[in-house]
Amino acid sequence: MEINHCDDNFFMNEAFKEAQKAFYKDEVPVGCVIVCDGKIIARAHNYCERLCDSTAHAEMQAITSASDHLGSKYLNECTLYVTLEPCIMCAGALFWSQLGKLVYASKDNKRGFNIHSKKILHPKTEILDGLMSEKCAKLLKDFFKQKR
Amino acid sequence: MEINHCDDNFFMNEAFKEAQKAFYKDEVPVGCVIVCDGKIIARAHNYCERLCDSTAHAEMQAITSASDHLGSKYLNECTLYVTLEPCIMCAGALFWSQLGKLVYASKDNKRGFNIHSKKILHPKTEILDGLMSEKCAKLLKDFFKQKR
Repeated sequence: MEINHCDDNFFMNEAFKEAQKAFYKDEVPVGCVIVCDGKIIARAHNYCERLCDSTAHAEMQAITSASDHLGSKYLNECTLYVTLEPCIMCAGALFWSQLGKLVYASKDNKRGFNIHSKKILHPKTEILDGLMSEKCAKLLKDFFKQKR
Repeated sequence: MEINHCDDNFFMNEAFKEAQKAFYKDEVPVGCVIVCDGKIIARAHNYCERLCDSTAHAEMQAITSASDHLGSKYLNECTLYVTLEPCIMCAGALFWSQLGKLVYASKDNKRGFNIHSKKILHPKTEILDGLMSEKCAKLLKDFFKQKR
């Protein structure tokens, strides 16, 4: 099944729902889903505070979960939708997974992988950014505003 | 308890023992330990093949384990000893953990974090490299030689 632009919006909205779950658990609201053959095979949100683990970003959990589902270390047939530009750690993990396509919403000008180099991702990983970026950024802004 | 150079060798040897465990499990032989107040609080080796998870590097598992042990996301009082220069993913994870000190043995000229930038680590993380580097590099070479 080919994923069209309409599906991109649908799946990013599912990632947004994950981010909302994080928001209500008082976690930095970032969420993601991993899609293979038009189906969501993994979904996760940031869980660093509850797990007391700085590596428990949404993408890291979703990669582990998707690999387990597929029985493969490699996600070259998968698309990851995430509400915020991945950090260096997550981009490094996506490199090892040889992710097929990355779709992210908001840019992260402070901690996003692009600050260092686009080459951190696997050379075969397609990238699409900016989808639903205002909505996803607003959720983050609202979260940090209430923290002040 | 202050860690002296002799202890550095002791702890790197413990990391090497972890790498040997990986070797005998047919995993890329990289191992590490995390030390706090002179005691090993976490130890791990590469487990990517068995777990079928490209994120299961030694350092990632050890960070999660040490955080769980300390009940803290932050490892600023800890030293991580690892037999190979961390990759981008692991260096990114070490940034988030605010690791106190990183000691690594062999350089990784292909996938080590230094290829991109030393700034990937937290600015407060001390770095020591080259300890037992020949011994650790030999284990890796032997592993890949038998794979050919």
